[in-house]
Amino acid sequence: MTYCMGLLLQDGAVLLSDTRTNAGVDNIATFGKMHVFETPGERVFVVMTAGNLAITQSVINVLIDGLVDEASGELETLDTVPTMFRAAQFVGKAVRHIYNIDGEELKKHGVSFDASFIVAGQIKNRNLRLFEVYSAGNFIEATADTPFLQIGEIKYGKPILDRAATYETSLSDGVKLSLISMDSTLRSNLSVGLPVDLVVIERDRCRVGLRRRVTDQDEGYKRIHAEWSEALRRAYRAIEPPGWLADLDGQSEAQKRGN
Amino acid sequence: MTYCMGLLLQDGAVLLSDTRTNAGVDNIATFGKMHVFETPGERVFVVMTAGNLAITQSVINVLIDGLVDEASGELETLDTVPTMFRAAQFVGKAVRHIYNIDGEELKKHGVSFDASFIVAGQIKNRNLRLFEVYSAGNFIEATADTPFLQIGEIKYGKPILDRAATYETSLSDGVKLSLISMDSTLRSNLSVGLPVDLVVIERDRCRVGLRRRVTDQDEGYKRIHAEWSEALRRAYRAIEPPGWLADLDGQSEAQKRGN
Repeated sequence: MTYCMGLLLQDGAVLLSDTRTNAGVDNIATFGKMHVFETPGERVFVVMTAGNLAITQSVINVLIDGLVDEASGELETLDTVPTMFRAAQFVGKAVRHIYNIDGEELKKHGVSFDASFIVAGQIKNRNLRLFEVYSAGNFIEATADTPFLQIGEIKYGKPILDRAATYETSLSDGVKLSLISMDSTLRSNLSVGLPVDLVVIERDRCRVGLRRRVTDQDEGYKRIHAEWSEALRRAYRAIEPPGWLADLDGQSEAQKRGN
Repeated sequence: MTYCMGLLLQDGAVLLSDTRTNAGVDNIATFGKMHVFETPGERVFVVMTAGNLAITQSVINVLIDGLVDEASGELETLDTVPTMFRAAQFVGKAVRHIYNIDGEELKKHGVSFDASFIVAGQIKNRNLRLFEVYSAGNFIEATADTPFLQIGEIKYGKPILDRAATYETSLSDGVKLSLISMDSTLRSNLSVGLPVDLVVIERDRCRVGLRRRVTDQDEGYKRIHAEWSEALRRAYRAIEPPGWLADLDGQSEAQKRGN
């Protein structure tokens, strides 16, 4: 299983992915799911992948090698796309290219063509944008209203994003939120695993501002992991119980006194 | 969709279910998914259901009407089962009974036999126990190590339980935790909906201690709903950011100063 997420913020983007790949719980390996394509100061793209590893690795290879554009006859790559929208289309085109090669063959073996992608990036003098590309090659874009996108095992890590992530969240807070969202997923689903890969893109710099592989030895992550559980316990206890619970407590107290 | 959960605690059990049933997003209705069978002071059972409504309603009807025990030739009901283990077996038997009637017919229409149940309760002079019964009629039991069981749309509401629910949690805190777990699910999945049904069983009293339908007008729930989001935001901000984020903030500050 996989969990990848991207936050689109006022000051930039935060991208985070786990690294665990499994075919059954007895065949687990570490594979990077985050791919960075960068010409510092000019253009930067981060592509994260979820789904069938054979498909997603093939798609990444097509992104690296490029595809000949049928209209112009020229080779299209992430170095040549003029806009982020075209970058997302290009990833979609790469997915369709692999579907045309492998889709029918996979179907013969009862394997669905399962792959999804988060694509974030910025081209100089253009906007920073964040997309999710589906296995059909179509895609959606994150907006200020819903500033995050997730692929893979998305549910465990969604509540904290639903409640706390806004477009105005700072990059530093965005990194903390992302690590908490990942930590919730790691805790609830063993097939999502450490280390995790983190990239921060600062808006309008068109390059990776921070790139880090976060391991279980990372002091910052260890603190978040330890303090978050404690913070949640404190937080729920601090909420005043509904008034109608008073009867229950009264009964329990009475019971404790042997009444 | 459905979300039901049960907590098995030192002082009793907390059971919570939503009430939304849908066949597609354009066909939504309210159906109780919580069924209480009680002879106060003698025995109390709560059965919550998830899955295909035609199946789960049929199973509940079998629980009410009873089944003839093949060995003894006598009618078995929740009023006659001698132990909680036998109660869970009886629910499993009811599920298998309905499978034998409907399973093959559903298969012809490509409908899977999808149903699951949470069964909690206590019989006088016996232990309070909490079970999950699967569509095959087999079942598992909650223990002090993992004091909760969930059915239906379980993932959004699991992280808070994973982190905060322990066997030693008080009944009052257990109710708050359950409402938070439900609130997280309601927020992330529109097909799980208010009102929710809550029952608390106090250990060794063998009757329902508290039973309440919680609506969107409930002041206690409204406070939890409002305060929890705010509490989470405060909590994550209070965690010190990883030291390696300092560079990023430094760069951002430099950028803001126009460097």
